[in-house]
Amino acid sequence: VSSSAGTADLADLVAAARSGSPRAVGRLISLVEDAGAGGGQAQLRELAATLAPYTGRARVVGLTGSPGVGKSTTTSALVTALRADDRRVGVLAVDPSSPFSGGALLGDRVRMSEHATDPGVFIRSMATRGHLGGLATATPQALRVLDAAGCDVILVETVGVGQSEVEVVAMADTTVVLLAPGMGDGVQAAKAGILEIADLFVVNKADRDGAEATVRELQHMMSLERRERGGPSWRPPVVRTVAARGEGVDELVGALDRHRDWLVEHGREREGPRRRARAEVEAIAVASLRERIGDLSGHASLPRLAERVVDGELDPSAAADEVLAEIAG
Amino acid sequence: VSSSAGTADLADLVAAARSGSPRAVGRLISLVEDAGAGGGQAQLRELAATLAPYTGRARVVGLTGSPGVGKSTTTSALVTALRADDRRVGVLAVDPSSPFSGGALLGDRVRMSEHATDPGVFIRSMATRGHLGGLATATPQALRVLDAAGCDVILVETVGVGQSEVEVVAMADTTVVLLAPGMGDGVQAAKAGILEIADLFVVNKADRDGAEATVRELQHMMSLERRERGGPSWRPPVVRTVAARGEGVDELVGALDRHRDWLVEHGREREGPRRRARAEVEAIAVASLRERIGDLSGHASLPRLAERVVDGELDPSAAADEVLAEIAG
Repeated sequence: VSSSAGTADLADLVAAARSGSPRAVGRLISLVEDAGAGGGQAQLRELAATLAPYTGRARVVGLTGSPGVGKSTTTSALVTALRADDRRVGVLAVDPSSPFSGGALLGDRVRMSEHATDPGVFIRSMATRGHLGGLATATPQALRVLDAAGCDVILVETVGVGQSEVEVVAMADTTVVLLAPGMGDGVQAAKAGILEIADLFVVNKADRDGAEATVRELQHMMSLERRERGGPSWRPPVVRTVAARGEGVDELVGALDRHRDWLVEHGREREGPRRRARAEVEAIAVASLRERIGDLSGHASLPRLAERVVDGELDPSAAADEVLAEIAG
Repeated sequence: VSSSAGTADLADLVAAARSGSPRAVGRLISLVEDAGAGGGQAQLRELAATLAPYTGRARVVGLTGSPGVGKSTTTSALVTALRADDRRVGVLAVDPSSPFSGGALLGDRVRMSEHATDPGVFIRSMATRGHLGGLATATPQALRVLDAAGCDVILVETVGVGQSEVEVVAMADTTVVLLAPGMGDGVQAAKAGILEIADLFVVNKADRDGAEATVRELQHMMSLERRERGGPSWRPPVVRTVAARGEGVDELVGALDRHRDWLVEHGREREGPRRRARAEVEAIAVASLRERIGDLSGHASLPRLAERVVDGELDPSAAADEVLAEIAG
């Protein structure tokens, strides 16, 4: 897929995406990823401006949890349930894949293959591209693309550890934290910093030994936890699922809708869009500044300065000043 | 712990750290963390300049792997083995803990408590502080602090998923990837993007069922993988350990030393220091730029602009331009 497009092409692509072309949606997200990875800031800006009028309708649901809890399976089951309800669905699988090999793995796609031919579903894996902040930059824009393509619900699937992933989750309207029995003790869960961000818990593989213990442990931890997000009056429900067999998935959809209703009732439905807009504006601004630094890497100034730091000829701050002076110059 | 210090204090703190005061080391790393989280760039720069002459000797070993593989236990066992060899050891536990509650959890410290009173060991947990790039900024500086404090070896323990963690691992001279039997299939491991970065594999809990299958799967994946780092002639060994009982830990130390020797023999021992210096210079430069944006968040310009983006009055790029104009102004 080519990663550059002229202005006319961009308008055409956006029009095609709005009419439901998966290929156009895919290309637009590729553009966003490449821009987020350091190139094409001008294009990113143009794309943001072109998409903005057509967006603001989609609801973003974040799904997070440790590897092995069944995120992809649950996401896939949710897609099935939402499609049965005739909702248009986008899936953004945010993969902390290698910064060396780049790209997304086949795994997710295989698990998602049952939806591959459904024109009401857009599925996309995003890689982090090994660039500091690349994910945080690309995600709000990719959400805009899927929003403009007419998605009612966008499911964002991330691995629930790591700073960038938490930032991605913070862009959702509703955040679902998945757990499974026997995947590690409570301390491990708390370590991943996911308890405070959950609007809803799913204990998947609920037919396995230890499921009820996991539910109880969650409820115990919630009783201890002071919650920052969601306010004092929303208490995250715990939904039991066996996603591989579709069990509990309708209940999960119900709980998602109740959280949405609660947000609306309490006049808080703009919080998610606000967080996304803020993340997006900040990301574009930071990316612009960073691009100037990134340009330097290409010019071998940074390696040369680093070499002098290793040799003790220059202290790191002085080297950073030289970098900044070159950017300003 | 206070997070600011005058110039005289800084020199005193560095002197105290060099004479082996754990309290001084701890305070310096706190300073670094706070600077990395957005405040005190001037101090970060001064600290970097003050520390630089006393550093360049420590060897950095990164340990990474999914939650539950036994990273903390292995790190602790490695500390024991390195101390038996009379090497001064630093431990930096990089925790993807909550951006909301901040701070590190007690868990690691409890596991590390046997070393708490050993004056030849410095242990520090670092939190990500919920700031984009905070970890990447703080880690090279924290390594400098431990280096200046006379550590022969610094063990950096991270969770092996997430972009920031991979960036942290890239700062090591030698990267150890830990696995355990039954912690998820090979696809999950590859997803975490850790296979390509390993100089050395540890299959921990090697007394459990499935350990040999994990070893075989690793060897199979290595035979398929084209490696970018480490060059074609270093083949990562697979070490079996039962860290909780100290089994295989001497072999692990031996393998670490062999990798070090190999780097020296091939004239590649400066690669790690170069990567750290480059990360450090880039981080200080990026942090300086970012601080200007961070200042805006405090001024409510960003929320106001985000609100206008949500209302469709402003496109995200135009809002980013306003942010950048305010920074320049």
